[in-house]
Amino acid sequence: MREVAVKFCIILLLLISPSVLASKKKQKYHKPCKQFVLYYHDILFGGIGGNDPVNSTSAAVTNVTKLGNFNFGMLVIFDDPMTKDNRLLSRPVARAQGFYFYDMKTDYDAWFAYTLVFNSSEHKGTLSILGADTMMEKTRDLSVVGGTGDFFMARGIATFETDTYQGKGYFRLKMDIKLYECY
Amino acid sequence: MREVAVKFCIILLLLISPSVLASKKKQKYHKPCKQFVLYYHDILFGGIGGNDPVNSTSAAVTNVTKLGNFNFGMLVIFDDPMTKDNRLLSRPVARAQGFYFYDMKTDYDAWFAYTLVFNSSEHKGTLSILGADTMMEKTRDLSVVGGTGDFFMARGIATFETDTYQGKGYFRLKMDIKLYECY
Amino acid sequence: MREVAVKFCIILLLLISPSVLASKKKQKYHKPCKQFVLYYHDILFGGIGGNDPVNSTSAAVTNVTKLGNFNFGMLVIFDDPMTKDNRLLSRPVARAQGFYFYDMKTDYDAWFAYTLVFNSSEHKGTLSILGADTMMEKTRDLSVVGGTGDFFMARGIATFETDTYQGKGYFRLKMDIKLYECY
Repeated sequence: MREVAVKFCIILLLLISPSVLASKKKQKYHKPCKQFVLYYHDILFGGIGGNDPVNSTSAAVTNVTKLGNFNFGMLVIFDDPMTKDNRLLSRPVARAQGFYFYDMKTDYDAWFAYTLVFNSSEHKGTLSILGADTMMEKTRDLSVVGGTGDFFMARGIATFETDTYQGKGYFRLKMDIKLYECY
Repeated sequence: MREVAVKFCIILLLLISPSVLASKKKQKYHKPCKQFVLYYHDILFGGIGGNDPVNSTSAAVTNVTKLGNFNFGMLVIFDDPMTKDNRLLSRPVARAQGFYFYDMKTDYDAWFAYTLVFNSSEHKGTLSILGADTMMEKTRDLSVVGGTGDFFMARGIATFETDTYQGKGYFRLKMDIKLYECY
Repeated sequence: MREVAVKFCIILLLLISPSVLASKKKQKYHKPCKQFVLYYHDILFGGIGGNDPVNSTSAAVTNVTKLGNFNFGMLVIFDDPMTKDNRLLSRPVARAQGFYFYDMKTDYDAWFAYTLVFNSSEHKGTLSILGADTMMEKTRDLSVVGGTGDFFMARGIATFETDTYQGKGYFRLKMDIKLYECY
């Protein structure tokens, strides 16, 4: 009888402990605890200093340097709309506030750091994202390094994909936000 | 007898396992493991390039753009004192080194990224903070994304509140630093 | 009999639970789960705008301000090679893409934010790093705030040490990357 009881306990332990750990791991590591797609619209008309202030939502604040022919050194500050589908005029569900700069001599690579600011009935809070946008790749992973409000302490990955690029005036990125740490 | 033993084991498991998880959660998620308030003093006299180098602890390095009337595009680099109370001349307990820029056409929104550098007998180490300072809100949450030294691997929230704003020369922010991950 | 079974269960619980926790703690907190040393080569010839575009891998995009005599306000954008040993001409194992700026009136302090981009048979992925480079210290700790690909969701510390400084044209940093959170 004693042995049956002991075995039962061991089995219980084996069943419960690893499953607790496994579910934690799974939840935390391999499957996003939250995921959504948003489109980023960068509207940048005119040269340095923001020469089309009515239509633009971003402006270059430094000049292109002489390193290569891909805007190396141009730093752009933005307050861009984020929408759920890829239409520029859809109702924004967040603002993307931050900057990027071009940083490659041989192609259009950029480096981004920005915060998604949500302030709607659906979501209040922020997600801060940074990393390299290596544009020669079809998709690029950046890091979600922090969150506040509804996204309290979040971490994860933001996968960029260029949706359209219309010269110097407008480009659109599909951002697939996957959070792997949610609180 | 066997059943009593088994039940006892189950109760034990139920008592111990969840309490372990709960205490971890509580400690990690809901109550700061460390919290303190510091005041940030930004002293910015003169125009672009730092026209009052004696008194200033920060300087604009890019010009305001034509987007709106709220300094959109002005990027300021700072090495500002942090004090425990809100008096500018109190002994600094840390330096805040980093930058902010204004990024809104319709109001004074800014985006910050900086590191608090502690180098005293009380604390040695750093905390790095970034996020959107949406000034129309009374309090704004930014993300503490990393720490070193006494703040090894820390993460958390920095809540900003404008304490005073004296034109272009000086403003002061109350920063309530709450760490939710301490090692 | 019942008591023996119960005691056995208690012992089991005591043996299993703490060891699980301890091993997690050890792995996560105190010893790096991954560590490697890389050398960063910043090649910056000429003044603002990149006056030696052939040899340079970085360029200043803002002017030095009047605050002190240590380049306060100069912001440099870079796409610099990272090598395993300290020879500039060794095969790069990653690129460092990002920026730094000088931010101190009384010494050469800088603030860095950049992403290591790995794209070789050995490693694919990124690590994003930011923090204060307080150069008066022999070694300086910055924060690894995120990772992607092979470094999925990583966090840790990057310890800087100046390896050489050759005027305005070239400097080299030894970066000891220690990851304490690996997935």
